[in-house]
Amino acid sequence: MDLTQISSPSFLKECTTKQLQDLSEDIRKFLIEKCAHTGGHIGPNLGVVELTIALHRAFNSPEDKLLFDVGHQAYVHKILTGRACEFDSLRQYKGLCGFPKRSESEHDVWETGHSSTSLSAAMGMAAARDVKGEHNYIVPIIGDGALTGGMALEALNHIGHEQKNMIVILNDNEMSIAPNVGALHNVLGRLRTASQYNKAKDELEGLLKKIPAVGGKLASTAERVKDSLKYLLVSGIFFEELGFTYLGPIDGHSFESLEDTLQNAKKTQGPVLIHVVTKKGKGYTPAENDTVGTWHGTGPYKIETGDFIKSSTTAPAWSKLVADTVTRIARKDPRVVTITPAMPVGSKLEGFAKEFPNRFFDVGIAEQHATTMAAGMAAEGTKPFLAIYSTFLQRAYDQVLHDICRQKLNVFIGIDRAGLVGADGETHQGVFDIAFLRHMPNMVIMMPKDENEGQHMVKTALDYDAGPIALRYPRGNGLGVPLDEELQPIDIGTWEVLQNGADAAILTFGTTIPMATAAADLLATKGIKTEIINARFIKPMDEDMLHRLFESKKPILTIEEAMLEGGFGSAVLEFANEHGYDTDLVDRIGIPDVFVEHGNVDLLLRDLHMTEEDAVESVLHLINKKSKKQAGLETQ
Amino acid sequence: MDLTQISSPSFLKECTTKQLQDLSEDIRKFLIEKCAHTGGHIGPNLGVVELTIALHRAFNSPEDKLLFDVGHQAYVHKILTGRACEFDSLRQYKGLCGFPKRSESEHDVWETGHSSTSLSAAMGMAAARDVKGEHNYIVPIIGDGALTGGMALEALNHIGHEQKNMIVILNDNEMSIAPNVGALHNVLGRLRTASQYNKAKDELEGLLKKIPAVGGKLASTAERVKDSLKYLLVSGIFFEELGFTYLGPIDGHSFESLEDTLQNAKKTQGPVLIHVVTKKGKGYTPAENDTVGTWHGTGPYKIETGDFIKSSTTAPAWSKLVADTVTRIARKDPRVVTITPAMPVGSKLEGFAKEFPNRFFDVGIAEQHATTMAAGMAAEGTKPFLAIYSTFLQRAYDQVLHDICRQKLNVFIGIDRAGLVGADGETHQGVFDIAFLRHMPNMVIMMPKDENEGQHMVKTALDYDAGPIALRYPRGNGLGVPLDEELQPIDIGTWEVLQNGADAAILTFGTTIPMATAAADLLATKGIKTEIINARFIKPMDEDMLHRLFESKKPILTIEEAMLEGGFGSAVLEFANEHGYDTDLVDRIGIPDVFVEHGNVDLLLRDLHMTEEDAVESVLHLINKKSKKQAGLETQ
Repeated sequence: MDLTQISSPSFLKECTTKQLQDLSEDIRKFLIEKCAHTGGHIGPNLGVVELTIALHRAFNSPEDKLLFDVGHQAYVHKILTGRACEFDSLRQYKGLCGFPKRSESEHDVWETGHSSTSLSAAMGMAAARDVKGEHNYIVPIIGDGALTGGMALEALNHIGHEQKNMIVILNDNEMSIAPNVGALHNVLGRLRTASQYNKAKDELEGLLKKIPAVGGKLASTAERVKDSLKYLLVSGIFFEELGFTYLGPIDGHSFESLEDTLQNAKKTQGPVLIHVVTKKGKGYTPAENDTVGTWHGTGPYKIETGDFIKSSTTAPAWSKLVADTVTRIARKDPRVVTITPAMPVGSKLEGFAKEFPNRFFDVGIAEQHATTMAAGMAAEGTKPFLAIYSTFLQRAYDQVLHDICRQKLNVFIGIDRAGLVGADGETHQGVFDIAFLRHMPNMVIMMPKDENEGQHMVKTALDYDAGPIALRYPRGNGLGVPLDEELQPIDIGTWEVLQNGADAAILTFGTTIPMATAAADLLATKGIKTEIINARFIKPMDEDMLHRLFESKKPILTIEEAMLEGGFGSAVLEFANEHGYDTDLVDRIGIPDVFVEHGNVDLLLRDLHMTEEDAVESVLHLINKKSKKQAGLETQ
Repeated sequence: MDLTQISSPSFLKECTTKQLQDLSEDIRKFLIEKCAHTGGHIGPNLGVVELTIALHRAFNSPEDKLLFDVGHQAYVHKILTGRACEFDSLRQYKGLCGFPKRSESEHDVWETGHSSTSLSAAMGMAAARDVKGEHNYIVPIIGDGALTGGMALEALNHIGHEQKNMIVILNDNEMSIAPNVGALHNVLGRLRTASQYNKAKDELEGLLKKIPAVGGKLASTAERVKDSLKYLLVSGIFFEELGFTYLGPIDGHSFESLEDTLQNAKKTQGPVLIHVVTKKGKGYTPAENDTVGTWHGTGPYKIETGDFIKSSTTAPAWSKLVADTVTRIARKDPRVVTITPAMPVGSKLEGFAKEFPNRFFDVGIAEQHATTMAAGMAAEGTKPFLAIYSTFLQRAYDQVLHDICRQKLNVFIGIDRAGLVGADGETHQGVFDIAFLRHMPNMVIMMPKDENEGQHMVKTALDYDAGPIALRYPRGNGLGVPLDEELQPIDIGTWEVLQNGADAAILTFGTTIPMATAAADLLATKGIKTEIINARFIKPMDEDMLHRLFESKKPILTIEEAMLEGGFGSAVLEFANEHGYDTDLVDRIGIPDVFVEHGNVDLLLRDLHMTEEDAVESVLHLINKKSKKQAGLETQ
């Protein structure tokens, strides 16, 4: 059928199984074609086609609430709720969001992006429903990976206690174990409905014990961490003891199983958990065959071959540059260990993991634990490198503050994806970390101008032994500069003059340095000489240089791809204020007090008034102001 | 024995059981006497006397690592490691810290204060030990309450997976169930050592099912939440399935049981969990009879009667004022609901809970879940009041940002214990919330000057329907001002002139307003007229008033009992910079870039240069600077 003609999921209730199967095929074809052009989370969405159709058939959205945990698996939901025609703009500037978005549709009742929030939100919605005396269904859909997040476990404990009516869908889509478990679902379903639950449980346990731990494949540590919890899940004991009625495991690609189980769940009082086994990437061979997560989220690809359309850059990816330098240093320094919360691929730590399996720890989706574990390792004299995306470090705010900074422990935090990330949008922009780390005592924060400085900063961080030190680096690739052979630590708190100029100064760091250089070039055409400072240490700042700059009475522009409130520019204002300097010739460019949506980073920066033209305008304004001020002084 | 003569715990290894019992008695007597004068966490410490002695006997601290989760139960540990002579200064300025402190003793290997961190730290220490090829024991001691924190559950999942050698002590000290469970320990211990584990487990389960849910006592909801998890714990399945060897439950007051089980655990490979049942307050009748948690942490008391020595103030406690006003409004507005993460007593929500049991949710120690649950309730049209201490809100940074602010949901966050808290010290000072909330788009932050304004702010918050709104209020009591009969909402973002004055202006809010007034009085004696502004909205600020102030060219002093970096004063600097005003006549008083230790708040403020004298000095300096500036202009 023409998916763009769908305006509401209500038609599903009239469909035959054959029609649902045809629809599934159409949706898969549509997703594979659209994502080939736009990129996106193709693997997870191919896995939940039947499940999403079955949910929209069994429930009445939006009265009944479907909450997609993490949210990258909501494409099918978007198609069924009238948004197929917008898929050409998926994850693009002003286009369809890659996650549920309340402003897009009344069917998107809960926005996600970060993991493990859906159960807490569902508990809140169920509690609100009961307070209001209403009777709708609340249906969170959560993956087995997200369930290792502590917040999801907190929620399970509370939901089971409160005995609220709720139907939790556990979407168990892990490739290494799914086919094995899936083979059991019919036997188990029959056994369970015959009230022979204990027998079923024992049989299942016996069978599971015979399954090779990682199915003969090279599974990542994260997958194995998930397995240890999964074992508990699959047996059902965990949920039953917490007060849930456990149904499953069932085949998430069988409409009959889904329909029967969902109807059964709807009749059950109290919280129900349905364990649904799905196959990530189902229906597209390259994605089905993926064993390491390459097809979880992708850029554009060639449909026929599954080859990714590579970007033309030959510069190293930032994540890889940092990870490889850590690995290089680890060869000489046995104290170096690395920790990642479920991001070994994204953080490019496969090489380290292979070379130093005993010094590498992938803890699964558990940012809090990862951070305090790093603190524990540092307390015992090792040098942990904690690789974590800026947006996910938000989850560990208190662990950084209370456990690492307060105890002044030597943890090296690699803040990956710092700054605007583009297509993932609002929930993933790495723009808060400066504002939330800067007020933590003992913290050092740095960001390099290019990958050569980046590798020296890795050395700086691993040499540093006076407390925590964070290195911010952006999503994507470096500039392609040559790399020095020898690694040299940089003095903590020192900035670098990139270009001299008597008329004004631009203070910036990382990704916005090219913007500053371009602005300086434009200003040069107007005869204005601009000093450019690589403010590579955001904390502590280079106070000698700041004194020199303020004493020179040059106009100063700060630029940061981060929140203005409490950010780097504010730090410069605070410095000036503390030392009695005027700030009337200071201007700050950065992200204003809003959440930044998804889209091409250059377009976003234009909207945020963060371009080289904005920088030029700002410097001209300051110079003009300075002239007027001097004229005023002279005429007085 | 004379406890002040103990310099190291090594003597314990030579003691007979009788000597250990006598020592326990001496320690209890000592604790009851000392805490009667200083206050402190008497209940938890009386419960772990034998356990702590047994641990120091079985292990060799500091080579073996004892990690006390939360840490308020470390007094016995402090006595045994040579600190008895310092107990007269417990929790006082420059005195003995109420929590483990690395700078106090080599035996304090991990600092705590916030809950649920010990297992992650222990995992880190065990991993570091193995990387270094060492063989010491790692022994985290965690309560049953702390185990509902998601981070502890994340850690359990990872520890079980990694199979690190570690001995986790589960200190199960809940009063409503302990005596019942305790009665089983001998039977169970025998059964288990005879390898009849399954039989023991079944017997235990059967017995537990016969125990009345709350033991006939009025247990708080938090206790019942813990129970649902506890049931899982007691049966041992949870830990066994996660990969732990489960030993227990054992009597935590029996040296024989403790000794046997600890020796057994030391011989076991992989992670072991020992389930120890203790009685909070043991040995002191008033504390033993406590059913609601009054004796968890106390001020000074009379030993003979257990009566608390009341403070002389008759002004309402801030927590009670806020909670009672919420309750009052909830009588008319059925949308109002309240959520607390395990703080119904501290947050004075007992009245609300009693009156509206179906609209009250105590979720246990689970700040992340509490916060996102509030978001879920708001998404469905109720008006959640989330009562949480400032220091614990740190745990929910991302939930406030990603779930509440980003979706602009109408959650009313009551930030209790905002500002310096005194005796609890570094880990509990509520001084970061302004800096970490201010950069979140859509957030409103306010703090009242007195309890009358406080009650109107509660009304303001519950009327507000344009997103999240936070009300900060300090630890302790109000000023004793009369309360208006009728509640009136305050216009968002409006400040109040408390006192006019042409020569300078002090901008402040909350607890530092009296300091400003005192400073203004001192300045008045020097003929200087100071305007005092109640900057009750920290975000958004009163821009009209700021324009007026900056246009007047008055010296401006900001005062905040919070971090200076990224704080309220910085917001004023940012405003001035954005609007082109000079900031050379602005000064900021607040907490510098350090962690603030425990002690009397007035003494701490003196050390931090945050007194009325400091304010006077600052204003005089600014006025002097202004004069010089004017003189300079005139002579130019």
